[in-house]
Amino acid sequence: MEVELKQLNADLQFLSQSLPDPSHHALLCKIQLRVEELGKLAAAAPVRRSKVEDMSAEVVDSNPYSRLMALQRMGIVENYERIRDFSVAIVGIGGVGSVAAEMLTRCGIGRLLLYDYDKVELANMNRLFFRPDQVGLTKTDAAVQTLSDINPDVVLESYTLNITTVTGFETFMSSLTKKSFCPNKEGSGVDLVLSCVDNYEARMAVNQACNELSQTWMESGVSEDAVSGHIQLLIPGETACFACAPPLVVASGVDERTLKREGVCAASLPTTMGVVAGLLVQNTLKLLLGFGQVSPYLVRDGDVFFILLPELLQMGYNSLKDFFPTMQMKPNPQCSNVACLKRQEEYMLAKPARDAAAKAKMEAEVLSTEEVPLHDDNEWNISVVDDVELDGPDTRSSDVLPEGLTHELPSADEFHEATPDAPVADNDDLEDLRRQLEAINSA
Amino acid sequence: MEVELKQLNADLQFLSQSLPDPSHHALLCKIQLRVEELGKLAAAAPVRRSKVEDMSAEVVDSNPYSRLMALQRMGIVENYERIRDFSVAIVGIGGVGSVAAEMLTRCGIGRLLLYDYDKVELANMNRLFFRPDQVGLTKTDAAVQTLSDINPDVVLESYTLNITTVTGFETFMSSLTKKSFCPNKEGSGVDLVLSCVDNYEARMAVNQACNELSQTWMESGVSEDAVSGHIQLLIPGETACFACAPPLVVASGVDERTLKREGVCAASLPTTMGVVAGLLVQNTLKLLLGFGQVSPYLVRDGDVFFILLPELLQMGYNSLKDFFPTMQMKPNPQCSNVACLKRQEEYMLAKPARDAAAKAKMEAEVLSTEEVPLHDDNEWNISVVDDVELDGPDTRSSDVLPEGLTHELPSADEFHEATPDAPVADNDDLEDLRRQLEAINSA
Repeated sequence: MEVELKQLNADLQFLSQSLPDPSHHALLCKIQLRVEELGKLAAAAPVRRSKVEDMSAEVVDSNPYSRLMALQRMGIVENYERIRDFSVAIVGIGGVGSVAAEMLTRCGIGRLLLYDYDKVELANMNRLFFRPDQVGLTKTDAAVQTLSDINPDVVLESYTLNITTVTGFETFMSSLTKKSFCPNKEGSGVDLVLSCVDNYEARMAVNQACNELSQTWMESGVSEDAVSGHIQLLIPGETACFACAPPLVVASGVDERTLKREGVCAASLPTTMGVVAGLLVQNTLKLLLGFGQVSPYLVRDGDVFFILLPELLQMGYNSLKDFFPTMQMKPNPQCSNVACLKRQEEYMLAKPARDAAAKAKMEAEVLSTEEVPLHDDNEWNISVVDDVELDGPDTRSSDVLPEGLTHELPSADEFHEATPDAPVADNDDLEDLRRQLEAINSA
Repeated sequence: MEVELKQLNADLQFLSQSLPDPSHHALLCKIQLRVEELGKLAAAAPVRRSKVEDMSAEVVDSNPYSRLMALQRMGIVENYERIRDFSVAIVGIGGVGSVAAEMLTRCGIGRLLLYDYDKVELANMNRLFFRPDQVGLTKTDAAVQTLSDINPDVVLESYTLNITTVTGFETFMSSLTKKSFCPNKEGSGVDLVLSCVDNYEARMAVNQACNELSQTWMESGVSEDAVSGHIQLLIPGETACFACAPPLVVASGVDERTLKREGVCAASLPTTMGVVAGLLVQNTLKLLLGFGQVSPYLVRDGDVFFILLPELLQMGYNSLKDFFPTMQMKPNPQCSNVACLKRQEEYMLAKPARDAAAKAKMEAEVLSTEEVPLHDDNEWNISVVDDVELDGPDTRSSDVLPEGLTHELPSADEFHEATPDAPVADNDDLEDLRRQLEAINSA
């Protein structure tokens, strides 16, 4: 703007010198004054940055992507610009979800889908993101306002709804399967769902939708005493789903009975929520852009190494001790969620092809580094073990918690047992249920 | 606002019904229209929340402190409102410092002192906090604008200066010692200094100031490949200072030669910086409000347990592996920084009194829990060991790094060796230097 104003003034000056009639000078003076006023007005107007066609790695102050594209030169990410092809859905725009949305927006994610039904209150001001002047707006509207100002390149879709209601769940499902953003991409319409909700029912709804759509998702949470948190990666059929086992394990000692009373609220801190959002989005970037330990790698289980997809399945954060325990959870073959069982079955059916591909990849890597090829008696004791062994009821590792961890919520089984009239969760895949009943009747 | 408007309208309605003359009705209609317009205008104006006299624990949507005061009911913090008595100085308002400032502001810290000389650029938009409409403002001005809107209760002081210049350093020192905020408090004018700078010289300046003032501080940093970071607590005389040993250890494999070239910038991510800021401020809160493992506790060193003040001395964050190594660093008796040596001497002089107090406290605690009193042959093998043993050159633990850690910067000694004409750092305490020279001359 300053440059254009200078040029305009220079042109006017030039014109002034080239005009012979003094009466013209008076008119020009007037025009110059008007331009000056206009310049002042323009300078006071808030600067909204214009859209950027392509991400550039050029190191200039005006390039909003230079520090991100530098990840390529640093050898961290192979192709950063791919981030523009990804869609991420964030359910719950509270203390964790709003910060996760801002981080992904500043990273230049392609498309964000935001879900919440709550309004901004002054009581939310102890967490990052929302401002006092947004009090009274829905969290989705306030978020779109802030995020579109920060980065107009991101496609923002906001859904002001409660996913635990029947119509809310239907809209949630159909929004996840809309494929207009990247029509030729495999899978559902989004690449990842981030659950940033604060209650059990909403987590069960996200779990149901993701199991039905075979949609990879990440769960996050912060304890009610504000000093612990967790993140967890869930891949339907491959890892424990939310109904397989209580996945909310954090090193926390809060008695839940102290909560849920009239006039009592949970504590929260911007620090714990910021750390959890940061870990959640960092692992989102690793998963989407393929860096760090997310691609197939070796995990130790007793004395055998076996191939497992993502390194990070569940991670806790205990801020009092700066302790970050991690653990893996395999799916429960007795899971009460029918869609989960269906995904487990599909995962097992695809096993021979997956094992062959993994073996071929590993052998190729071993050969390419000119080391000894893979044998049964190899130095690292590597063997591609049978998933059935690991998935058996006696190896259900989710029951065994590392030292210092406790279950934050009742197990899903306890939850279901509490409603004996409905032994299967309400929102289970009805078609599947019908097929099961038919099989029982025909036997 | 809505409530007041409703009441006003109700009053007008009431008046309208009680007036017999129709000519009055026309006038009232006009008044009502004007009020409606006024209401629209008022609703569009940005809401700035008013100052809050006392922090309340009342659970209402309009209370910005309810979720923080809940930390007391949860048994995490004894007296949260004490946070209003603390002053924290933040040096460097970039990707880590700005987020740390926002977190402390939302937590209701008493007073923040902000130091930076840089301007906001579009190239900073890949990190949290600054907005595109702030481009061109100094980072200190932009931060004060945003922070005062978020929480008007916080006293904000901004210093637009470079602390590595002579006058900048002088202003920095005098601002830290100004005691007008809490005149009766012990120590310097601030309770903690947070270093969030991005270069070696600025860290050395913070180190010098804090050594001279015997000021506890925390150092933070993010690696140039954006995927690792660290925080570190420094207590002059008690822990290693920045010149004692290279304290910037992160699990990073970047070749520094790839940087520092024309047209090349460091990579950065909002995730890594958000996590580092979160860990930094979480430990600030633990230190100031006295919760978690910050008060005197027991640390294992070989087979002996010894008393050490803060648990967290240095902590790394490797986001690629979600690995958080921690380590402690004792001061170097051969440190090149004269002020550091002076603080080490003071710390040793105060040792008998400190040991006696710690022993008395421990015995009181043991007695209060009605357990066996402390003996030489106690179950936990606890002994209050001599600091001299630990501080000897052979036990300088800073030379021994845990697995996976490398020094990010050259050691301070290498830095000093590079300037043989100035064997002592330029900004060392001059008076002390003069005294040393006099001692040599008189010998």
